[in-house]
Amino acid sequence: MIRSARGWHVLALGLAVAWVASCSSRAPSTASEAPEPMAGAAAPQQLATAPALLGGVEAVEAAGLGKMWTFDRVPGDYLGERYDFSPPSDWYEHVRLASLRYGGGCSASFVSADGLVMTNHHCARGCITAVSTDEHDYDTDGFYAATREDEPVCQGLFLDQLVEIEDVTARVDAAAPAGSTREEETRLKREAMQAITEECSAGGLRCQVVSLYNGGIYSLYKYRRYDDVRLVFAPEGQAAFFGGDPDNFTYPRHDLDVTFVRAYENGEPLQPEHYFKWSESGAGADELVFVTGNPGTTLRLQTLAQLGYMRDATHPTIIKQYKERVAAARKLVEADRSLEPRYRNLIFGIENATKAYNGYLSGLEDPELMAAKAAWEESFRAAVAADPGLQSRYGDAWDEIARVNAELKAMDAEVRWTSLSHFALLSRARDIVRLAEELSKPESERTYSAAELERMERRVGADRTVDVAYEQLLLSMRLADAREVLGPDHPFIQAALEGREPGEAAAFIYQTSELAGIYQDSTLAGVEARRKLTEADAAAIGAPRDPAIALARSIDARARQLERRQEELETIETANEERIAEALFEIYGTALPPDATFTLRLADGVVKGYPLNGTYAPYKTTFYGLYDRAAAFDYQEPWHLTEKWKAAKNDLDLSTPLNFVCTADIIGGNSGSPVINRDAEVVGLVFDGNIEMLPNRFRYSDAVARTVAVHSEAILEALRVVYDAGTLADELEGKR
Amino acid sequence: MIRSARGWHVLALGLAVAWVASCSSRAPSTASEAPEPMAGAAAPQQLATAPALLGGVEAVEAAGLGKMWTFDRVPGDYLGERYDFSPPSDWYEHVRLASLRYGGGCSASFVSADGLVMTNHHCARGCITAVSTDEHDYDTDGFYAATREDEPVCQGLFLDQLVEIEDVTARVDAAAPAGSTREEETRLKREAMQAITEECSAGGLRCQVVSLYNGGIYSLYKYRRYDDVRLVFAPEGQAAFFGGDPDNFTYPRHDLDVTFVRAYENGEPLQPEHYFKWSESGAGADELVFVTGNPGTTLRLQTLAQLGYMRDATHPTIIKQYKERVAAARKLVEADRSLEPRYRNLIFGIENATKAYNGYLSGLEDPELMAAKAAWEESFRAAVAADPGLQSRYGDAWDEIARVNAELKAMDAEVRWTSLSHFALLSRARDIVRLAEELSKPESERTYSAAELERMERRVGADRTVDVAYEQLLLSMRLADAREVLGPDHPFIQAALEGREPGEAAAFIYQTSELAGIYQDSTLAGVEARRKLTEADAAAIGAPRDPAIALARSIDARARQLERRQEELETIETANEERIAEALFEIYGTALPPDATFTLRLADGVVKGYPLNGTYAPYKTTFYGLYDRAAAFDYQEPWHLTEKWKAAKNDLDLSTPLNFVCTADIIGGNSGSPVINRDAEVVGLVFDGNIEMLPNRFRYSDAVARTVAVHSEAILEALRVVYDAGTLADELEGKR
Repeated sequence: MIRSARGWHVLALGLAVAWVASCSSRAPSTASEAPEPMAGAAAPQQLATAPALLGGVEAVEAAGLGKMWTFDRVPGDYLGERYDFSPPSDWYEHVRLASLRYGGGCSASFVSADGLVMTNHHCARGCITAVSTDEHDYDTDGFYAATREDEPVCQGLFLDQLVEIEDVTARVDAAAPAGSTREEETRLKREAMQAITEECSAGGLRCQVVSLYNGGIYSLYKYRRYDDVRLVFAPEGQAAFFGGDPDNFTYPRHDLDVTFVRAYENGEPLQPEHYFKWSESGAGADELVFVTGNPGTTLRLQTLAQLGYMRDATHPTIIKQYKERVAAARKLVEADRSLEPRYRNLIFGIENATKAYNGYLSGLEDPELMAAKAAWEESFRAAVAADPGLQSRYGDAWDEIARVNAELKAMDAEVRWTSLSHFALLSRARDIVRLAEELSKPESERTYSAAELERMERRVGADRTVDVAYEQLLLSMRLADAREVLGPDHPFIQAALEGREPGEAAAFIYQTSELAGIYQDSTLAGVEARRKLTEADAAAIGAPRDPAIALARSIDARARQLERRQEELETIETANEERIAEALFEIYGTALPPDATFTLRLADGVVKGYPLNGTYAPYKTTFYGLYDRAAAFDYQEPWHLTEKWKAAKNDLDLSTPLNFVCTADIIGGNSGSPVINRDAEVVGLVFDGNIEMLPNRFRYSDAVARTVAVHSEAILEALRVVYDAGTLADELEGKR
Repeated sequence: MIRSARGWHVLALGLAVAWVASCSSRAPSTASEAPEPMAGAAAPQQLATAPALLGGVEAVEAAGLGKMWTFDRVPGDYLGERYDFSPPSDWYEHVRLASLRYGGGCSASFVSADGLVMTNHHCARGCITAVSTDEHDYDTDGFYAATREDEPVCQGLFLDQLVEIEDVTARVDAAAPAGSTREEETRLKREAMQAITEECSAGGLRCQVVSLYNGGIYSLYKYRRYDDVRLVFAPEGQAAFFGGDPDNFTYPRHDLDVTFVRAYENGEPLQPEHYFKWSESGAGADELVFVTGNPGTTLRLQTLAQLGYMRDATHPTIIKQYKERVAAARKLVEADRSLEPRYRNLIFGIENATKAYNGYLSGLEDPELMAAKAAWEESFRAAVAADPGLQSRYGDAWDEIARVNAELKAMDAEVRWTSLSHFALLSRARDIVRLAEELSKPESERTYSAAELERMERRVGADRTVDVAYEQLLLSMRLADAREVLGPDHPFIQAALEGREPGEAAAFIYQTSELAGIYQDSTLAGVEARRKLTEADAAAIGAPRDPAIALARSIDARARQLERRQEELETIETANEERIAEALFEIYGTALPPDATFTLRLADGVVKGYPLNGTYAPYKTTFYGLYDRAAAFDYQEPWHLTEKWKAAKNDLDLSTPLNFVCTADIIGGNSGSPVINRDAEVVGLVFDGNIEMLPNRFRYSDAVARTVAVHSEAILEALRVVYDAGTLADELEGKR
C-alpha cells in the first residue's frame, strides 16, 4: 500500500518541498494551441527564442514533472492530443464533486446515490479498529453492515468535498505593494491569505488558500465537510493486505484493499448530487483512465545537485542505518527468541522503509532518469539564459543550490554521527546538557527559545523507557562504522571511545550510566526519577560525570555548530528553490501541473502492463493468481488465506480481475482514489504503486512505473461470493 | 528453456573453453579432511603456506567454479559438511546408470522398469516433428501412445548411458616421455587417447577420453548406446512452452516441458537394471536435491581481464548489433505488414539471444560478482606466488592474458566493422575477392588452405538468396554507427561511404551491385548465375567494378591483417588459459569440480525461492498460476490455453505444484536432467534457468540464480486429468 500523505511525510527526508510549474506552450511552434492565461495569473514571459520549449504532450514528457492536474486547469489540448478525448462540459465538475479527501491523509469518492463512499482498507483502518469491540475484531475478521441500522459511526472521521476553486491570485498579489522587501511581501501575502480564508470560512465552508507554482497562482479551495461517517463494509485485514510487507510496493499483486463507509446528514444517508456510477466491465487493456485524488508531496523540481546529494550522501546513509537497526534487532532476537514479537514490527517497518529508499536510490542511480533530468534542466536554464532579465533574476539559482549541496555533502558524515538520532538515551543526555547550559545563562543570551527549552524539558521528563540492550548494540555498530568513516582521530570518536573498542565503549556507556538506569526503569520509581530530572536544577543534572552525559557534552559544541550551519544552508537552498519555481512559472506558465499539495488532482493514464525481469507483467491479476501465490508459499503468513476465502474458492469466478496497473501519476495521499473511465464510471480503486514507481518521486516516467489498483469487478465478485454482501454490490451497481 | 548444448554453442562467443580445476583441500587447516588423491592423478603440489586456501564448502563457494561434480569424484566431505548427507555406497552407481545423455545435446533418465525415459519437450521436438504426419501435427497437438504398439520409432535418436569411468591419466601421461617439447607432448598424448578410445570401442561400447582439469586427469568414459527409441508421450507445444519467448529464461514459470520416450532392445521394451522411481510428493521447500545431467560449457576460469574484455567490448557490441538487426527487421515489417510472418522468427530469435546477452552483461557489470571474482583470482595468484617453482612456471599467465585482451579490446571496433558479419552479400563478395587473389598465386604462396578455398567456393555458389532489403537497411544503420565509432577518416568508412551519407551508400551498394541482383534472384536463372560464379575464372569474377566487390576488396587487406592478429592473440590466450588450469590443478587438486564438458555430472542444491523485485519468488508455482497468467493476458498468444487445458480446468487440483526452483548448478546441455531427492527418486525435471542464472556462466552463485524444473506432481496430475494418460502415470508410479 502507499502510505497516507502523513505517512509519507514521516518517510520523507525533511527536504524542502520542490515546486512544480507549468508549461504555457508559448514556444512559437505551438503558440496557437497555448491555453489562455488564467485571470489573475502572473503574465508569463513571452520569449523571442525558447530553446527546447515544446508544447502539449511533448512538453509534459520532457519536463518529467508529472500529470497531477488541478481541476480548474486540465489542459484540454494535452488530453485531446494524447487521447483524442474531449470530456463534456460538466465532466470536470461532476468528477470533482464525486471526489473526496478522506480524513487527514487519504482520498475517497462517492459511489452511490445513498452516500456510499469508497476508500482503501488501509485508510479506513482507524475507523475499523475504533468500532471493534472485545468480542469483535473487525480489522482481523472484516465487517459488514447488512442494514443501515448496523452501520456504526466512525468517530472523528470526516470527508472533504471540493465544492469550488476560486482564483485569488490578484487579491493576494495586490496585498504587497510594489517596492516591498521580500520579507514584507511574504508577510503581507500571508496576511491576505489568512483574511481570505477567514472570510470564506464564515460562510460555513472549510477554506484553504493553496499556493501553486510557488505563488504564481493562489487558489482558494472551498470544501464542504461531512463529519457523520459510518462504516459499511471492510474485508479481513489479510484479504486487504495479502502478501503483507514483502508484497507491499510490488506488482503483480493480489489485494482487496477496499472499505466502504457512508456519509450521513441529519441522521440520514446523504443523497449526493454527484457520485461515480459503477462500470459494467471495469478496467480493460489499453483503456484511458483517470485517477482523482489528493497526492501529497513530490520532489520533481529538485535540481541535479540536490539529487546528487541524495544519491551520494543522504540515501546511502539512511539505508545503511536502516540495515544497522535491523541487524541490531535481529541479533537480540537471535540471542533470545522470546523477543521476536517485540521486535517484529520494528523489523518489518524498517524493512519496508528500506525497500522504499532502495527504490528512490535506484532512481537516483538510474543513468536514464538522471540524463533526462539533466536534459530538462539544461533546456530550462537555456530558456532562462536566453532572456537577460530572467538571467539576471534567476540565472545563478542552480549554482547557489549546487554550492549549498556540495557543502551539505561534505558535512554529511559528521552531521549524522553527531546527531545522536536513534539513541533515545543519548538524545536525552544532550537535552540535559543543553538545558543546563541554557538555563545558566540570562534569557536574552540563550540560543534556544522558551518553547524549544520547554520541549527539551518535556522530553527529558517523559514517561518513556529506553531500550538499553538495543541501543547499546546499535551504538557499538554505529561507532565501529563511524571510526571507519570519520577516522580514529575525530573528536566524536575520541570522545565516544576514550581508547576503547566500539563494543566496549557502548557497553561502558549504557551499563555504567546512571541516566541509563533511570530511563530503563519501568516501575513507578523510574517514572518518578525521570520526573525529578526536570524538576531538579538543570545545572546540577548536567554536572555528574555520567558517561552518557559526558559523551553528549563533549560533542555538543560541534553538533550545535553543524546544526546551525545546516539550517543556514537550508534557508539559502529554500530561497533558491523558490527562485527556480518562479522562473519556471514565468517561462512555462500553466500547461504543466503544479507540485503536489495534498489537494484534489486529476491524473490521466492508460491501463497497461510493462516489461518485468525478462518478460512482461500483465496489466491485471486474477483471483487465480491470489490462490496461486497462497499455494506457492504453502499458505504461510503473510500469504495465508482467511476462512472465507478458503470456503469461497470453488464458487468464485477465478478469472475475475483482482488488481490492475495503469500509468496514471500518483503518490502518497492518493490512497483510496477511484480509477474512472471516460464516462466517469468506477473501474478501480488505487491502493499502491509498483516498486518501479518509487523513482517517480524525483521525475515522472511511465516506462515501467505503474499505479496499482483493485479492479472494480473484483470488488463486486468478492462482495457477492465471499462476503454474502449482495445488497451492497447491488447498491454499487445502482440496482436497489 | 535452456538451449541444448549445441544451441548454447551457437550462442556462445567462440571463446576458448575455460578449464575448471579441483581443490585438494591440502591447506594445512583442512589437510586431515582432504580426499585421497586419485590413482593416476598428477600429484598436487604440497604448499608450505597457502594464502586464502580453504577446504570443503568454503573452498567451493570462494572459487565460484560451481558444483558440477564428476561421478567418480563427488567430494564426500563437501556433501557431508553442507547437507549432512552420506549416500549409501551404491547410490552414485545407481544414479549414474539411471542417467542418460539424450541425442547430441540434452540429458534424460530412465524412469520405469520398462525402459521409459524422461526428457524435455524441447529436447524431443525433433522426434515429435519427425513422427508427425500430414494428418497429425503432434508438436502442436501433443502425442500419447496408450499402448506399446502405438509407440513410433524416433529415427536417428540415441541415448547414451555412462556405464563406467576409468582413470587413464597414467597411461596418457606415460605416452609423452619426460623432456618432450610441448608440441610433442600434445601430439603423443592425443595419439594415446585415440588408441585408448579405439581399444575400448572394440568392446562394443561408445568410448571417449575426457580431459578434465586441462589434462590433470584423463578419464575414459564408456557408454552403452540405446538406438531404438520410441515416442510415448508429448504435451502440446503450447503447454510445454507456455509464455513462449517472453517467459523463456524467466521464473515464476508455468511450463509442462516434458516428453517420455521408451528405449527398446531387440524389439522389446528395455528392462533397465537402474531407473529412478517416482517420489510420492515431489520437491518440497528447502529439500536437498540433485541434478544429474550433461552440462555443456562454462567460462568460470576466465580471468578478470577476459571478463573485462567481454564487458567493455564484445558483449555491448553484440547487444548493439542485435538491436540493429531487430530494428531493421521491424522497420521492414512496419513498412509492409505482410512481411510480419517472414521476420517473426528472426525477431523472436534475436530478442531471446539479446535477453541472454543482457543477462551475461548484467553479471559482468555486477560489482559483487566482479569483486568475488577478483578476490578469488587474487588468492589463487597469491598461492602461485607463494611457491617459487609455481611462480616461475605460471606466475605471468594472468598478465599475458591481460596483455592479449587489452590488444583485443583496442582492435575490437575495427574487427567488428571489417568483419562483414550479418551481410551475406558482402561476405560473398569477400569470398570472391579472396578466391580471385588466392587462385592467381601459386599454391605454395597461398594464405588459405585448399579446404578453406573450397569452403569459400561452396559459399559463393550455394543456392541461397540474399535478403537485399534487410541487408541494405542494416548496412545503413551499421555505417552510421561505424562512422561515429571509427571516425569519418577511417579507411573502411571512406571506402564504404565514398563521400555519401550512410543511407545513400547502402542503397548504392545494394541497388547497383550486379552481384546483389544475382544473389537476390530466386528463379532457376539465379541458381544458375550463382553456380556460374564459382565456375568462372575467379580472377575475372573479382575484376568488375561491382560496388559490393569493390567495398570488400578495398578493406580486405586490413581485414586479413586483423584476422591474422586476432588468431595469433587467441593462440597466446589459449596457451595461457591452459597454464592457469594447470596451476589450479597443481594447487587445488580435485576437490572442486572441473569445467563442464558435456559429460555426466551430479549437481547438489536446495529447493528454494529467492528475493525478486522487492518481494520474493516462491519456490514453486501451481496450476492456479498457469490459469492466472493466461487470464491476465486475456489468453493472448503466447499465453493462450489449448483446448485440453481449457477443458480440464475444473477437474484439476489447481494447487498442484507446476514448476519449482532449486540452487543446483546447471547450464545448456542439462535440459532434460531429472531432479532427484536423497533417495534417488524423481522430484522434478530441469528445463531452464531463471534470468538471474545467466551470469553463472562466469561465476557460480546461488544468491538469486535458480534452476527451473517441472514438478513431478504436475506431470502425474496432467497425465491423469488433462491427457487421460493414467496408464503412463501408473507406470511412473510403479503401479502396473
